[in-house]
Amino acid sequence: MSVVVQNIERTPLSQVDALAKFGVATVHEAQGRTGLMHAYMRPIYSGARIAGNAVTVSIPPADNWMIHVAVEQCREGDILVVAPTSPSDAGYFGELLGTSLKQRGVRGLVIEAGCRDVRELEEIGFPVWSRAVSAQGTVKETLGDVNLPLVCAGALVNPGDVIVADDDGVCVVPRTNAETVIKASADREAKEADNRARFQKGELGLDVYGMRDRLKAKGLKYV
Amino acid sequence: MSVVVQNIERTPLSQVDALAKFGVATVHEAQGRTGLMHAYMRPIYSGARIAGNAVTVSIPPADNWMIHVAVEQCREGDILVVAPTSPSDAGYFGELLGTSLKQRGVRGLVIEAGCRDVRELEEIGFPVWSRAVSAQGTVKETLGDVNLPLVCAGALVNPGDVIVADDDGVCVVPRTNAETVIKASADREAKEADNRARFQKGELGLDVYGMRDRLKAKGLKYV
Amino acid sequence: MSVVVQNIERTPLSQVDALAKFGVATVHEAQGRTGLMHAYMRPIYSGARIAGNAVTVSIPPADNWMIHVAVEQCREGDILVVAPTSPSDAGYFGELLGTSLKQRGVRGLVIEAGCRDVRELEEIGFPVWSRAVSAQGTVKETLGDVNLPLVCAGALVNPGDVIVADDDGVCVVPRTNAETVIKASADREAKEADNRARFQKGELGLDVYGMRDRLKAKGLKYV
Amino acid sequence: MSVVVQNIERTPLSQVDALAKFGVATVHEAQGRTGLMHAYMRPIYSGARIAGNAVTVSIPPADNWMIHVAVEQCREGDILVVAPTSPSDAGYFGELLGTSLKQRGVRGLVIEAGCRDVRELEEIGFPVWSRAVSAQGTVKETLGDVNLPLVCAGALVNPGDVIVADDDGVCVVPRTNAETVIKASADREAKEADNRARFQKGELGLDVYGMRDRLKAKGLKYV
Amino acid sequence: MSVVVQNIERTPLSQVDALAKFGVATVHEAQGRTGLMHAYMRPIYSGARIAGNAVTVSIPPADNWMIHVAVEQCREGDILVVAPTSPSDAGYFGELLGTSLKQRGVRGLVIEAGCRDVRELEEIGFPVWSRAVSAQGTVKETLGDVNLPLVCAGALVNPGDVIVADDDGVCVVPRTNAETVIKASADREAKEADNRARFQKGELGLDVYGMRDRLKAKGLKYV
Amino acid sequence: MSVVVQNIERTPLSQVDALAKFGVATVHEAQGRTGLMHAYMRPIYSGARIAGNAVTVSIPPADNWMIHVAVEQCREGDILVVAPTSPSDAGYFGELLGTSLKQRGVRGLVIEAGCRDVRELEEIGFPVWSRAVSAQGTVKETLGDVNLPLVCAGALVNPGDVIVADDDGVCVVPRTNAETVIKASADREAKEADNRARFQKGELGLDVYGMRDRLKAKGLKYV
Repeated sequence: MSVVVQNIERTPLSQVDALAKFGVATVHEAQGRTGLMHAYMRPIYSGARIAGNAVTVSIPPADNWMIHVAVEQCREGDILVVAPTSPSDAGYFGELLGTSLKQRGVRGLVIEAGCRDVRELEEIGFPVWSRAVSAQGTVKETLGDVNLPLVCAGALVNPGDVIVADDDGVCVVPRTNAETVIKASADREAKEADNRARFQKGELGLDVYGMRDRLKAKGLKYV
Repeated sequence: MSVVVQNIERTPLSQVDALAKFGVATVHEAQGRTGLMHAYMRPIYSGARIAGNAVTVSIPPADNWMIHVAVEQCREGDILVVAPTSPSDAGYFGELLGTSLKQRGVRGLVIEAGCRDVRELEEIGFPVWSRAVSAQGTVKETLGDVNLPLVCAGALVNPGDVIVADDDGVCVVPRTNAETVIKASADREAKEADNRARFQKGELGLDVYGMRDRLKAKGLKYV
Repeated sequence: MSVVVQNIERTPLSQVDALAKFGVATVHEAQGRTGLMHAYMRPIYSGARIAGNAVTVSIPPADNWMIHVAVEQCREGDILVVAPTSPSDAGYFGELLGTSLKQRGVRGLVIEAGCRDVRELEEIGFPVWSRAVSAQGTVKETLGDVNLPLVCAGALVNPGDVIVADDDGVCVVPRTNAETVIKASADREAKEADNRARFQKGELGLDVYGMRDRLKAKGLKYV
Repeated sequence: MSVVVQNIERTPLSQVDALAKFGVATVHEAQGRTGLMHAYMRPIYSGARIAGNAVTVSIPPADNWMIHVAVEQCREGDILVVAPTSPSDAGYFGELLGTSLKQRGVRGLVIEAGCRDVRELEEIGFPVWSRAVSAQGTVKETLGDVNLPLVCAGALVNPGDVIVADDDGVCVVPRTNAETVIKASADREAKEADNRARFQKGELGLDVYGMRDRLKAKGLKYV
Repeated sequence: MSVVVQNIERTPLSQVDALAKFGVATVHEAQGRTGLMHAYMRPIYSGARIAGNAVTVSIPPADNWMIHVAVEQCREGDILVVAPTSPSDAGYFGELLGTSLKQRGVRGLVIEAGCRDVRELEEIGFPVWSRAVSAQGTVKETLGDVNLPLVCAGALVNPGDVIVADDDGVCVVPRTNAETVIKASADREAKEADNRARFQKGELGLDVYGMRDRLKAKGLKYV
Repeated sequence: MSVVVQNIERTPLSQVDALAKFGVATVHEAQGRTGLMHAYMRPIYSGARIAGNAVTVSIPPADNWMIHVAVEQCREGDILVVAPTSPSDAGYFGELLGTSLKQRGVRGLVIEAGCRDVRELEEIGFPVWSRAVSAQGTVKETLGDVNLPLVCAGALVNPGDVIVADDDGVCVVPRTNAETVIKASADREAKEADNRARFQKGELGLDVYGMRDRLKAKGLKYV
């Protein structure tokens, strides 16, 4: 019943890299406010902004065996996405796994559970987004699946989807949407640059976005 | 039913600035341990210590329209205080709103909800205290109120009250208390400086605060 | 009914210091995955890695009187471990207590409750692991106990046990286990150094740990 | 600094009783969706639907002394509203206090903390809405205030306001709004009775509320 | 961008009804421990055990407009499954919607948010599984989608999947699995009936499941 | 490393049964407000009030193997106390295990994790106090310990201690304290009966407990 899917279609790295630059907030807006993981997914250290192809791992709670299996399936430009089948904050992942993944060109880890060796992971530059930091050890007893679709922190992730992650959280861009979302993100960024310039000059959002008439129509009273 | 109160009485900036220097813990103690917001209100980046006049915004969950309305009501030395009418961790606020408020001299945001563009807000130096960090977009559909009294994170805030915020949290000083609290804070700080010197020399709190007799009377046993 | 136990057996500082170097994750594994406090115990600033002899304090919720009593019982190389008798996030501890403890050579505080003066405590270099940051003041009215066994964040702590704390959390090493755990930690570190070198060369955990046969036997399918 | 306000203006019991019949959901809607306490305030047993005049009690965490003080201030038709100054789930209230309040005609308790003797309170018919059930004892050491305005579970309560509570939660009706809210509640109930009849016959909300045009204008597509 | 999918393939009601009888725990086990929603989804009253075809509704936080749209898409034997796009505990659903759905033969509601009119919904016999009970009103301003796949409480739900719900929680059975899961559930129930009889006679699980050798091999010591 | 301790000293059932009658709140008070588990331990159905000798089980998260091992160690008058080594809400326990334990005279289960088959467990009359209700299945792969001391929901439990559980929560009475606590509980109950009678006649706690002078001395003002 447990499977490892070896050949998954990935998003071209040119597209992945383009998405990384926009960051989570822009990408999330550009694809119609979808794909965002829950806000409890936080970076273990601040400042990283990455994107990569999802390699997905579904594991039993407090058992990290399948992460070792998944490492072999990873390649340059991937991000590992791990979710246990029931909530757990144990520490499934540490510096040795980080070292191994980094050596293969993996860009980071997204795990709806716990992570440990926070200091060491920052030192080697392997960013992690997790629900908890915990030193609690895990076992290697029960199988799970690699590269099947899974739900991580409320978001559906298909293998080969693009994961974008930064200090604002984690967002999933379905592989077939990547091109469209890049375009929409670029448009949004251009528009935001214009608006930023106007705000810096002191214009108000009420005018920049033309909100006054609609507010009045809705019945807003100034007293 | 939705109103924007335009003329509010603010606390003089000289008083506001005096309160900023004491910080949250001192001010909270100095006004009799009142006015503190819940501990889940955390800064999105550490190190800021500010005070400002409250401009209050009550909004529906996941709708940030009224924040745009409130910007126009803000001036030099204000802090925006936002609370949704039911719990929500969506990302109501980002770098463009921060840019606009900063241009007007606003010193920060306190929001019992989510905030995004964390990295960018730190870069432009606009501090935020929030319940969550989230990239989740919000709508602009439903009205709320600006500058009515509101409850934010368990504390009652009246427009023009002083908000003090730092790494320890957020505290509200009613406008009419400001002068008294400044005096009490200064007294407390002076006393703490004396005590600090004694502690640094190795004296014990048991003696500095004269606790031994009362402990004995209560029945404390040393074994 | 309230007691202060004055003479406790401590773990030799040579052992304490040896444990500090390994850090929480290694120590926790080396003693059979026991002794870890809950993951909600977080450092108020990152980067500290300490160990010390536990001086335990059991207090009523929102009352910090007994912390003052406990200071007198502390000496060079101790760590104060505080737990209230029912959950509370009030701010029991601030910079003055930190100054007093630091003067006595105490290395840090572990408190299943709140702490304040975060900025000042970082400035004086007194690390704290707590469940919350809160400026909320506490009273000095009700007695508790110093140096009785207590449960803190899910872990049993006996006075004189070694507390190890870093960015991964907090772990308790029973005094009589210290020597054994040091040895097991050193063994683990040596083995990890070997494995790290192999991972850096590109070997896989599947081979380093010889997992392939057992995975096959369990029925893992590659597709 | 601690006060007991003895003479408060109450809402006439005829108004209080009228509000009780509508229940929380109707009253909350009828007063413009304001005054609702947080959803974590739950009844300790189901089935009660009450209203009463608020007698407010602000207490230190885990200290129930002022509840005893407040009993004397209560009379027929009151509801006791208790909030600690920092979060606590201790058990401030049990069957003896319930017996005493019931004897005075008090209709129930709303406490943003813990309650115990759940079985006994149900047996004597004294309903409680609380954040937790806990047997944890409290002390009687520190003063608080009776009948000052307070924030309970996110809602501002002034003494003499009407508290409405049932299985849906707890809502506060400001004393001066009571008459208006009764009228608006009755209107709402009448309209709902009409709508209920139409729904029972199989009509759709889309038609009963005339939503189809606006949905179309917003761009809803049927596929 | 907002759509209502009108023709979905449903699971035959004979299969749906068969699944209802097994209950959540059996069905979840029978399909390999998949499909379970998070444990925070609780029934608003106990005792109901239902199954139905999922009609899915994705809505903005605190906006229940699309539930009204979805009612029209429901028929005999359906269960409405609602998830907001960011966490919210507002009260999206009450007795009037329950009346309307019940009239159409809908068997219940599963909502990762709040529900109100708890007493009335129990009276009319319309069961709800929700994350919260809250009277907080919602708006009707922003569109969402009906009958697209969605993630609810951590589980992926496709329209026409079978939802099974009882006091143990909520489980999703993909439409194409229904037949297989019924068979596996029946097998499991038969086996459990045998085991129950043995347990009632005093046999031990250690013997019924033949665990003693494997425990010994793993190194369990009896002392 | 995993052990099953077979011969534990139990508390005489006469003492256990005496404690059951007092209930959790009284027993907790009578032993100096110690031994209470956290308030998140809730009964899966209301109305049960039991006491029994603790048989303790420490298990890995989401693995219920050792519960089967523990059953054999149980006898008439026991209560099983289970805690995982890291937080987990999976459903470790259901009706078959309940049947087996009931057959052996075990009175209930206390588990700092999840439980399932809620309806069936109520039908057979086997009460459970748990942190969650969840149908999530667990594995049988990793050993733990039976009848070693363990921390459950914040309380230290030694095998053979008395567990008292009712609608107010769960309390641990150390075996060697049982006699003393029975006496103190009886005294407390007698005193409470007197006080109840006085409250029923309308006397106030202020007078019954003689609080007025101390309140005045503390500075309480009536206005």
